[in-house]
Amino acid sequence: MKKHNKLKILNDPIYGFISVPSEEIYQLIEHPYFQRLRRITQMGLSYLVYPGAHHTRFHHALGCLHLMQKAVQVLRSKRVAISDAEEDALYKAILLHDIGHGPFSHALENRIVKDVSHEEISLSFMEALNLEFNGSLTMAIQIFKGKYHRPFMLELISSQLDIDRMDYLKRDSFYTGVAEGNINSQRLIAMLNVIDDQLVVEEKGLYSVENFLSGRRLMYWQVYLHKTGIGAEHLLQSFIQRALELIAQGISVSLPDTLKFFLTSRNLDFKNARVLDRFALLDDSDVIMALKMNRNHKDFVLSELSKMILERELLKIKFTKKQTSPEKVEKKKQKLQQQYGISDHESSYFVFTGQVTNSAYAKAKPIKILSKSGKLTELIKAGKEESFKALANSVTKYYCCFPKIRD
Amino acid sequence: MKKHNKLKILNDPIYGFISVPSEEIYQLIEHPYFQRLRRITQMGLSYLVYPGAHHTRFHHALGCLHLMQKAVQVLRSKRVAISDAEEDALYKAILLHDIGHGPFSHALENRIVKDVSHEEISLSFMEALNLEFNGSLTMAIQIFKGKYHRPFMLELISSQLDIDRMDYLKRDSFYTGVAEGNINSQRLIAMLNVIDDQLVVEEKGLYSVENFLSGRRLMYWQVYLHKTGIGAEHLLQSFIQRALELIAQGISVSLPDTLKFFLTSRNLDFKNARVLDRFALLDDSDVIMALKMNRNHKDFVLSELSKMILERELLKIKFTKKQTSPEKVEKKKQKLQQQYGISDHESSYFVFTGQVTNSAYAKAKPIKILSKSGKLTELIKAGKEESFKALANSVTKYYCCFPKIRD
Amino acid sequence: MKKHNKLKILNDPIYGFISVPSEEIYQLIEHPYFQRLRRITQMGLSYLVYPGAHHTRFHHALGCLHLMQKAVQVLRSKRVAISDAEEDALYKAILLHDIGHGPFSHALENRIVKDVSHEEISLSFMEALNLEFNGSLTMAIQIFKGKYHRPFMLELISSQLDIDRMDYLKRDSFYTGVAEGNINSQRLIAMLNVIDDQLVVEEKGLYSVENFLSGRRLMYWQVYLHKTGIGAEHLLQSFIQRALELIAQGISVSLPDTLKFFLTSRNLDFKNARVLDRFALLDDSDVIMALKMNRNHKDFVLSELSKMILERELLKIKFTKKQTSPEKVEKKKQKLQQQYGISDHESSYFVFTGQVTNSAYAKAKPIKILSKSGKLTELIKAGKEESFKALANSVTKYYCCFPKIRD
Amino acid sequence: MKKHNKLKILNDPIYGFISVPSEEIYQLIEHPYFQRLRRITQMGLSYLVYPGAHHTRFHHALGCLHLMQKAVQVLRSKRVAISDAEEDALYKAILLHDIGHGPFSHALENRIVKDVSHEEISLSFMEALNLEFNGSLTMAIQIFKGKYHRPFMLELISSQLDIDRMDYLKRDSFYTGVAEGNINSQRLIAMLNVIDDQLVVEEKGLYSVENFLSGRRLMYWQVYLHKTGIGAEHLLQSFIQRALELIAQGISVSLPDTLKFFLTSRNLDFKNARVLDRFALLDDSDVIMALKMNRNHKDFVLSELSKMILERELLKIKFTKKQTSPEKVEKKKQKLQQQYGISDHESSYFVFTGQVTNSAYAKAKPIKILSKSGKLTELIKAGKEESFKALANSVTKYYCCFPKIRD
Repeated sequence: MKKHNKLKILNDPIYGFISVPSEEIYQLIEHPYFQRLRRITQMGLSYLVYPGAHHTRFHHALGCLHLMQKAVQVLRSKRVAISDAEEDALYKAILLHDIGHGPFSHALENRIVKDVSHEEISLSFMEALNLEFNGSLTMAIQIFKGKYHRPFMLELISSQLDIDRMDYLKRDSFYTGVAEGNINSQRLIAMLNVIDDQLVVEEKGLYSVENFLSGRRLMYWQVYLHKTGIGAEHLLQSFIQRALELIAQGISVSLPDTLKFFLTSRNLDFKNARVLDRFALLDDSDVIMALKMNRNHKDFVLSELSKMILERELLKIKFTKKQTSPEKVEKKKQKLQQQYGISDHESSYFVFTGQVTNSAYAKAKPIKILSKSGKLTELIKAGKEESFKALANSVTKYYCCFPKIRD
Repeated sequence: MKKHNKLKILNDPIYGFISVPSEEIYQLIEHPYFQRLRRITQMGLSYLVYPGAHHTRFHHALGCLHLMQKAVQVLRSKRVAISDAEEDALYKAILLHDIGHGPFSHALENRIVKDVSHEEISLSFMEALNLEFNGSLTMAIQIFKGKYHRPFMLELISSQLDIDRMDYLKRDSFYTGVAEGNINSQRLIAMLNVIDDQLVVEEKGLYSVENFLSGRRLMYWQVYLHKTGIGAEHLLQSFIQRALELIAQGISVSLPDTLKFFLTSRNLDFKNARVLDRFALLDDSDVIMALKMNRNHKDFVLSELSKMILERELLKIKFTKKQTSPEKVEKKKQKLQQQYGISDHESSYFVFTGQVTNSAYAKAKPIKILSKSGKLTELIKAGKEESFKALANSVTKYYCCFPKIRD
Repeated sequence: MKKHNKLKILNDPIYGFISVPSEEIYQLIEHPYFQRLRRITQMGLSYLVYPGAHHTRFHHALGCLHLMQKAVQVLRSKRVAISDAEEDALYKAILLHDIGHGPFSHALENRIVKDVSHEEISLSFMEALNLEFNGSLTMAIQIFKGKYHRPFMLELISSQLDIDRMDYLKRDSFYTGVAEGNINSQRLIAMLNVIDDQLVVEEKGLYSVENFLSGRRLMYWQVYLHKTGIGAEHLLQSFIQRALELIAQGISVSLPDTLKFFLTSRNLDFKNARVLDRFALLDDSDVIMALKMNRNHKDFVLSELSKMILERELLKIKFTKKQTSPEKVEKKKQKLQQQYGISDHESSYFVFTGQVTNSAYAKAKPIKILSKSGKLTELIKAGKEESFKALANSVTKYYCCFPKIRD
Repeated sequence: MKKHNKLKILNDPIYGFISVPSEEIYQLIEHPYFQRLRRITQMGLSYLVYPGAHHTRFHHALGCLHLMQKAVQVLRSKRVAISDAEEDALYKAILLHDIGHGPFSHALENRIVKDVSHEEISLSFMEALNLEFNGSLTMAIQIFKGKYHRPFMLELISSQLDIDRMDYLKRDSFYTGVAEGNINSQRLIAMLNVIDDQLVVEEKGLYSVENFLSGRRLMYWQVYLHKTGIGAEHLLQSFIQRALELIAQGISVSLPDTLKFFLTSRNLDFKNARVLDRFALLDDSDVIMALKMNRNHKDFVLSELSKMILERELLKIKFTKKQTSPEKVEKKKQKLQQQYGISDHESSYFVFTGQVTNSAYAKAKPIKILSKSGKLTELIKAGKEESFKALANSVTKYYCCFPKIRD
């Protein structure tokens, strides 16, 4: 990896500085494909609940790059062999692992672009960049696709204890101000090791891992699955769906061009440079603009949905242990139909049920703990205490959304 | 002031929690006029330099509300009489003091709406809200207009040591990660007092004031007047100007409706509810969208400007002690004219000079220091040391912007 | 409560400032009984593991005073009636709740002064101060003794979710740098309420309580029950015990006068002003000095113990699921006896076993959760999820201490 | 430098973790000479003003070790050649640079051990350790003595912008809670470079250096020269002086043995291993114990001084622009003489004058700024603005100490 002449550093409120390890990685950051991430919020509409949560995919990707440098440093100090080429590939893979996210990240995933996950789009971006950078991303792509022969490299990028999660939990906790989720990424990284090319955690990091997982679970309840946030995301998804519905009925809906293109095209091939370039023009502002363009649309549903989001007149939402009975839902819908003279189908945009599930830890892809004697044990077995077992529990909550009654 | 039944609190990464002091103030926050501030960035395009700087006018206003509550608490503990009505008015005035900001805050002030300052628009919003809230903002408006008989109340909102600055310096320092500007608002507020209805600082807070002012001066050099940021703002302003120029020539420029309305109307009366309501629909996304809509405009200048901002292909900028000679500027322009076949006027969008001035402290509106013996002295006199005198110094730097030479 | 003329504030790295709510409380802080807490470390010998852990009982008591002010403010904002006299009593009770701690806090409790807990000594101090302050601590003492008719006041001072724990967990986490234990005291306090004079937590604070309890459990494993720390405390306790043993055998041991007095007296009456005054002269320095005075004592055990602590040549310690077998212990002791020519009894100062137990939450004295509908439920029932049940689990670990083998 | 098998890390509330770069450096830290620094407070009696300021010389030395590792990393990334042997020497030199400090650091320097500075004692310790570590500290000693041929290495350890200051300002600001002094060591280090073996700062770090120097100046006024702290240190120094005076008069004064030895010996040779070993037994607890042993000494002055410190019954102190007139001082002394029946000499322990001087920057040993064009300029010239000039100003304040009048 060619060092550059100058140390390039970027300010980060969390880590202080993020240094860019090479000239080429600097060029990747400068690339329009990557710069667009500055206009894509990390946490969807969470800022309607946590007013500080305006950080972007751009900053998260840089944070990951920072932590990956720390991880490489720690592992090498423990005599894990990582070649310069592998180091470079790890940095590129983590930097670009989320480059395929579209407007509002997860909130609109599979809504604007159907049937293509953000990971697949990330891969298309990486491949396009690989062409442009003369094949220098080949190893990064192999790692990202899980085809590199040393599995720990993918585990650093995508596993239950990966660099991605370490940065986003810390970052989201920081910007939302939900201090309970502030995990200790520095300590977690210091506890990493590699045995037989698998990522493991040293035994003395056991409680830090538990804290990480329970912090993550808490962030899900308090932030990612916060009822107001869920309600807001439903509205946004419904807005898109209603727009499509109207268009299908031949009713005109004003939309920014690029957004309209993606909403109305199907089976797009992201390996096609034109498609990719066009996708690279899409960001949060298209969606905000679409909302504003339809504030006064003659369709009651579309205009209501856009106003509700823009003016934060969100739905009420109740969490319950059991599903709300269809009768209750029906009653609420009927009330609404009467009040506004809308159809059953239209009322279902405002009254609906759903469920969320939160599981801190999946035993299927275990976190491995390295004992002092060199033995590898799966986390829950290693932890022994009840609190570790509890992490594997998956909890489901049901909810019902409906509008506030306006007098 | 009517307390509410529940304690409403909002998360803030800086202060932990911000509590909303009354039901009515909560309703002001919920109002669409105020909610729109969620879509207006506090620091214009500074995020192109400091990737964390995506915080909004919304959050800043809440931060001010928080600090004002602290200030009222401190002053009352020092036996400064503040009635409940005055307390309420202070909260409303500080909450709404910046509500008139448009897209990208200062970066586009007087560019989208000409000849009307954001303070005037703030006042129009307050007056509209006062109608809606049955006159309950009357005292807040008096304070804001400097017509209330106790001057310290305006000084808390607008002076060289006001709550506004205390929050924005702390907040901007926090989100940019420029730790040097992290002023100690908690201590500054603890040192405030009121003598004869004037705001003063107790003597033992002298060095904290110095630190505040020199921190502010440093934030100007490092952040607000950062050369890359200045260059980016010029590009944005030029984009608007070029769009207007083309429209005047009868050349079509795609723009979101609301933005087009404000750009092409003149002498708008913000006391007119329709104008105000329309302005309330304007935010950062209109400008971003305008940039994206003109990426491929046939006008070289307009399309270049939009791409430069969107892809962060910014101008080079050099700071100098003296103004760059007209000859040098001319030479750079000519080179550009030849390279791209553009006119002298068109080249002036890419090559130009300017200047910035930074003064930490203006003696004209002095900060008053209260000695232990009860005497009031102006800051520099009270401070005595050279470093205090230096604060009153105003420093001007010149710059020249020009494009990177692409090979 | 008489407000003072000036706002007295003390710096605190955690909360920024701590303000002293009244002149009388300021006088309590100034009292020599309280000032001595400046010389008593909060965490015993934990600084041998965490070099930052040098904070004192003095600072912890002030931190509690700060949080209690926040709690009173929150509860009053929720319309819980707290009279000025009760407010004053709460501040005094929390300020003085730990004033009876002796050198190295818990590490030497019941070792220097036998059969008298630090709470009893705290009470004696409070009663002595009550005399001096003309009965103005009477209500504080009632609360502290659990004799005041409103139980929530004692619960604020001593319960599973009291102000004491909120400060010490946060403070100990801060000074040790064990970020995982950094609980969100601000949020916890904001969630407190009082129903029928009982302290309760509002439902939306459920996960914060869980986080608090699991943070506490983690602090026990990582800090309070850290194996190196436990080993060090054993050495210190053994040093005291050996000194007493030698004195009982008529062998001279050099000790500072005050320490000698307490070590060699029995059945002391702390209601006796002379005893109390003398105890007030005792602090960490007496113990450090005692160690240094006996570095070269002719008794092998005493001199070894003092050197081991002073030079941090600590015992090795192994944690195990089951108790180490007596045979193994015996073998280690015999080896030591041979190596140093010491008796079986003497070797037991260096080779011994023990156990520690960690339970995050005791159902016996439940934390009560207030649902939105106004129902009170015990924490685990309210939390439902497995992770809450796990908190009530108590975990025991066994250990064996023995010296490093020097070659 | 031999890497160790395990990564040794120490917790630090400021930097998170401090890693120990080699096994040998770990052994230096484990050495009793170094472990004693755990019992020597960094800031003398400042904790009587700032209750959090109980951090130790031990922790400061580790903090310096951490920052030096960062500095080496930054400089190497800028292609400054630093051999492994030089790296090792830098770490050892910074770790041990303050090992010679005695009880209460600067507060009692030249009071307990006369005519020998702490730097000289540091050197003696280093030389003793060099013998024990088979000459492996030779290069570190050369650097420390200024005899190594690359001057920047000493500048990293001792200059106006050295690692020592970067750590102690940050650390003292952190523990006192005086946020204004929180300098940005991370950024400062990132701006360092080496030209012709001299330490320089890159131009873009100019304002960070200014902020560092003005932060330091502020820490002097607010913390190191805080009037209460100065008064307290005078009392402590006077206590030692009075003890010596009484001993000289043949009056018995109880003192811990080691402290007595150093107070009553003269012209001690610290190259003598016995002297050094004995000095290594001295720490803060000896001084605290001495105070406590003489609380009831029959000498009024000695007993008063000890009680005043122990119970924080400090002198009043007034800062003035000009020296207090001898007449005023005389009057205060006479009043005291009458009140307590003490001599003129004795009264001078309680009434006296003094002065303090604060200069942020000494032009004599300039900080060099490296311009983009490669030119070196002295800081003030490079900074140009008035505020830089003001840094070179030296300010003197006078004070007068006297007892509070007790009624």
